[in-house]
Amino acid sequence: MSVTAAAGFRAAGVVAGLKPSGKPDVALVVNDGPLSAAAAVFTSNRCKANPVLWSERTIADGRLTAVVLNSGGANCYNGPEGFQTTHASAELVAELTGGQAFDVAVCSTGLIGQPLDRPILEAGIRAAHAELSPDGGSAAATAIMTTDTVAKESTASGEGWVVGGMAKGAGMLAPALATMLVVITTDAVADAATLDAALRAATKSTFDRLDTDGCMSTNDTVALLASGASGVTPPAEELTAAVAAVCADLARQLWHDAEGAHHDIAIEVVGAASEDDAVEVARSVARSNLFKAAVFGNDPNWGRVLAAVGTTRAAFEPEKIDISMNGVKVCVAGGTQFGRPSTDVDLSGRDVHVLVELNAGPATATILTSDLTHDYVHENSAYST
Amino acid sequence: MSVTAAAGFRAAGVVAGLKPSGKPDVALVVNDGPLSAAAAVFTSNRCKANPVLWSERTIADGRLTAVVLNSGGANCYNGPEGFQTTHASAELVAELTGGQAFDVAVCSTGLIGQPLDRPILEAGIRAAHAELSPDGGSAAATAIMTTDTVAKESTASGEGWVVGGMAKGAGMLAPALATMLVVITTDAVADAATLDAALRAATKSTFDRLDTDGCMSTNDTVALLASGASGVTPPAEELTAAVAAVCADLARQLWHDAEGAHHDIAIEVVGAASEDDAVEVARSVARSNLFKAAVFGNDPNWGRVLAAVGTTRAAFEPEKIDISMNGVKVCVAGGTQFGRPSTDVDLSGRDVHVLVELNAGPATATILTSDLTHDYVHENSAYST
Repeated sequence: MSVTAAAGFRAAGVVAGLKPSGKPDVALVVNDGPLSAAAAVFTSNRCKANPVLWSERTIADGRLTAVVLNSGGANCYNGPEGFQTTHASAELVAELTGGQAFDVAVCSTGLIGQPLDRPILEAGIRAAHAELSPDGGSAAATAIMTTDTVAKESTASGEGWVVGGMAKGAGMLAPALATMLVVITTDAVADAATLDAALRAATKSTFDRLDTDGCMSTNDTVALLASGASGVTPPAEELTAAVAAVCADLARQLWHDAEGAHHDIAIEVVGAASEDDAVEVARSVARSNLFKAAVFGNDPNWGRVLAAVGTTRAAFEPEKIDISMNGVKVCVAGGTQFGRPSTDVDLSGRDVHVLVELNAGPATATILTSDLTHDYVHENSAYST
Repeated sequence: MSVTAAAGFRAAGVVAGLKPSGKPDVALVVNDGPLSAAAAVFTSNRCKANPVLWSERTIADGRLTAVVLNSGGANCYNGPEGFQTTHASAELVAELTGGQAFDVAVCSTGLIGQPLDRPILEAGIRAAHAELSPDGGSAAATAIMTTDTVAKESTASGEGWVVGGMAKGAGMLAPALATMLVVITTDAVADAATLDAALRAATKSTFDRLDTDGCMSTNDTVALLASGASGVTPPAEELTAAVAAVCADLARQLWHDAEGAHHDIAIEVVGAASEDDAVEVARSVARSNLFKAAVFGNDPNWGRVLAAVGTTRAAFEPEKIDISMNGVKVCVAGGTQFGRPSTDVDLSGRDVHVLVELNAGPATATILTSDLTHDYVHENSAYST
């Protein structure tokens, strides 16, 4: 159900023809109200795609009546026509739905640097509008997939209100948002400021902690729309918790579907002096190609973990760091004492848990990442594009 | 000739038996004087190997009479015995050469987290001492190889004096020194302060600009020893230039031998507001797995270059950035204008030149990196270890 789980929303996903594969590639989500409050966060990449440049402006007034999304082209770095195409698609949605273009967010995903075919996109938007349905959430979630192998949907419920969301993204997953498009809807009554606070709190501890390959996209967008159709105004903390639950679930689905991954690796740092330190250390490990290649080979190479920790500015003393892999403490006191043998570590399963104990304070953080595999190289080299 | 090109030095490389392959694995370089001035720089990784912890202390007084090096084990994070093994090897060299242990630098390379067999190492040191020769440079350069496919040696000459060097390193090549061991010798007359200044200037623009996989080693050491045997005191700038020439040559050899690389990629950033900005931008591109995988596939995916630039804090306006690949300007004004088609770019050769024009100032920098290949993944997964 995803984005149509909450009352007051209709959605659709159709085949426009932007993708050579002939798979669905245009999605539309419409908020039928009575409210049209919204919030959104975007990539922190300074080189932004056209739809991000557009949507950043449209969200400024805290209102959205629709989100139009396409796969099959990122509409990014593709000449002077690109922004006009984004603008035109918002105008068309406004015309079809009887709204204002400035209340329509636009999201695109796919290859960057390629023209996005405006006539095909516009025909797709008309087709999607014709198919809008309160049951269209799954079709929309399918239409935004690129190298995703499964559609990602999630819901959470409060007392008399619902939050639902959809996501796409499988590669280029990195902080300050993964390469992903996420639309979350709720029929709770909430104003834009409440939604904005809820969304920022939720993404900080979920999507921002996903770092599969250290690469940051140009198109990331996470939008949250409230219809108020339930008539229920939940406490802000309950709404935030529900949004966070949906974000966390979608983030885990993105993690499990990361391009070419053979292992889902959680890097948990405990005993840090601050949460920022914990994030910095966990992210450094998550970005070590040597460590990630070792995990691919089922090699519990904790020396590469410690080497990655050593490149950070976090507060710690090297000779106080303990490292465990899948529950086996292989490194004690920074390798100055003997831990259990690496041969006790079993990495043959999909899940890998790395615990780094800094013994420098009370703060913790976990970063979710993937191993570096032949499939990752294959999918991201020209052989696959 | 490498480290024995300069008068006053003897060297040797022998098979001790630390490597299962039976290849040479212990090297010794001895400075016969009359001077014993020296300088060294080390990894900036805060988790350091035992030989680095030792050698940082020995260089503090600006004197070295010998450097002992082993491959077949990094002597890093391997329990309480590790530092004692490093110490014992320096003591043995001092005993054999009639010097002081505190004038002996120790370098180790190989797997981290493994015990280093002290009896085998000591037997190797004795064997190397017995074979010391003014022609032993190449044997020493061979004995420090790990996954290197070729020994790396270089020389440069002044008027009546010589600089020579050897290096090892093929993976984990990143800033603040690659995973590498480098010993450079000169028969010029120079004091420790002059050598230190020359070495730091040289490494800053050479080894520190090599970033093949973003991973920083625990063992990196670059040592520069002066025997004064030529009797010539060159101007400091001439000595610095010669040391820089040797470092640049060795860095290029390391680059060309990077683990699993199919392309040697130079990321040149021009028009930066500062050199630091130029380095940050070039390094960000050099660390983009998506970009590096694309190059492996001969795909001139300049959008991934621009996306990597966008993650930096450097001064620039996105819509002013131009990008060329192998001489073809594929991105004009940050993708807001059309560049030449990517199909004009030929990446089929080994050499790839990426030119990023920030149009924000006068500063430039170049980072040398490699593509992300199946061979890299293979060599660094357990299948190869």
